[in-house]
Amino acid sequence: MDVFEAIRTRRSRRAFDSRPVEPDKINKILDAACWAPSPSNSQPWEFVVITNEASRNRLYDLSEIAREKGTVELHGYAYVRPTPIASVDEESEEREKSFPDYAFTFLRKVPVIVAVVGLPQAQVRLRGAGRIQDGYKYACAAAIQNMLLAAQALELGSLWFTFFDQKLVGQFLNIDPGKHIVALVCLGYPAGDARSPGRYPCESKVRRLD
Amino acid sequence: MDVFEAIRTRRSRRAFDSRPVEPDKINKILDAACWAPSPSNSQPWEFVVITNEASRNRLYDLSEIAREKGTVELHGYAYVRPTPIASVDEESEEREKSFPDYAFTFLRKVPVIVAVVGLPQAQVRLRGAGRIQDGYKYACAAAIQNMLLAAQALELGSLWFTFFDQKLVGQFLNIDPGKHIVALVCLGYPAGDARSPGRYPCESKVRRLD
Repeated sequence: MDVFEAIRTRRSRRAFDSRPVEPDKINKILDAACWAPSPSNSQPWEFVVITNEASRNRLYDLSEIAREKGTVELHGYAYVRPTPIASVDEESEEREKSFPDYAFTFLRKVPVIVAVVGLPQAQVRLRGAGRIQDGYKYACAAAIQNMLLAAQALELGSLWFTFFDQKLVGQFLNIDPGKHIVALVCLGYPAGDARSPGRYPCESKVRRLD
Repeated sequence: MDVFEAIRTRRSRRAFDSRPVEPDKINKILDAACWAPSPSNSQPWEFVVITNEASRNRLYDLSEIAREKGTVELHGYAYVRPTPIASVDEESEEREKSFPDYAFTFLRKVPVIVAVVGLPQAQVRLRGAGRIQDGYKYACAAAIQNMLLAAQALELGSLWFTFFDQKLVGQFLNIDPGKHIVALVCLGYPAGDARSPGRYPCESKVRRLD
């Protein structure tokens, strides 16, 4: 598939067919991830591929437990649901969102979940300075974007899922606490269509010094 | 260009031809960036496109000033060169790197530099909780990866450049201090070939629960 077509047609999917994904397709997606750029080619990532039903059900259970507890790590930010829910400034132009109330049941149905694990330790150190703190996050995000585009080219739907509890999922997947689960990438044949939520006009995001 | 070919053949380039880049190609690259995924479609990014020679020379000057001062923000981490340079543990298996000593002169030659500016304020807030702290970084990284792949498909070379001083470049580009310059993306027709630094075998990065 043409790269621009993949970029434009990729959608976040939450409805999947239970049809298994061919192992060759999974490998192509992982290979695409590994070709992402990273600071000084440090490749600060690992991938845990979850295809068995019991483990996928467990990830669903853990997400529901996290929802119930009101704790979830969103993009590295530990969210704790306050009690009672704080009042929302109605005047605010900032978009607000409740703790996610959409069903997580697709985690039980989607045939492949890939935990993308960032390796802060793998990062390049600058001589005499500490580690580069955020480089692994940017690199993992580039790897994930490669995965989503590769999935699109292989006629698979995908979701960059982050509503999970870092500690619970880390323990279940036996991931060293020094590592950081950046996302659970869901992959499967899509069920139904997905509409684009649209974008601001690109030009509204651009300023030119020419 | 096929998406897998773009992913596999993209290289970090530091040698560019001074031939200008067609405005239509720049627009296609920006459009690709805008189609990246972001938390709840918050699109937390802006782009400053620098094509005029005086501004590109100034960015070069600012990078050299930052090198001279020994301050640079690398992926959101403020690096300060210590005096004297701390001893390096020779036994360490971690890769260490001196403050970058390669020439930044390509900043004067590359015809297009796009400052990718992250918008922490644009992020979705969870009701009653603070902003999602890191989401804009992941989204900007996905947008940058789209840009690099689009450039590759358009026969352009690219570089995800981060060795700059956040404050100096922010002041020069008149960027609100509440925003965060995630990268300077260099774009131009490549001069010469670029070898891949290679990758670890993909399978060495993968664990399977199947």
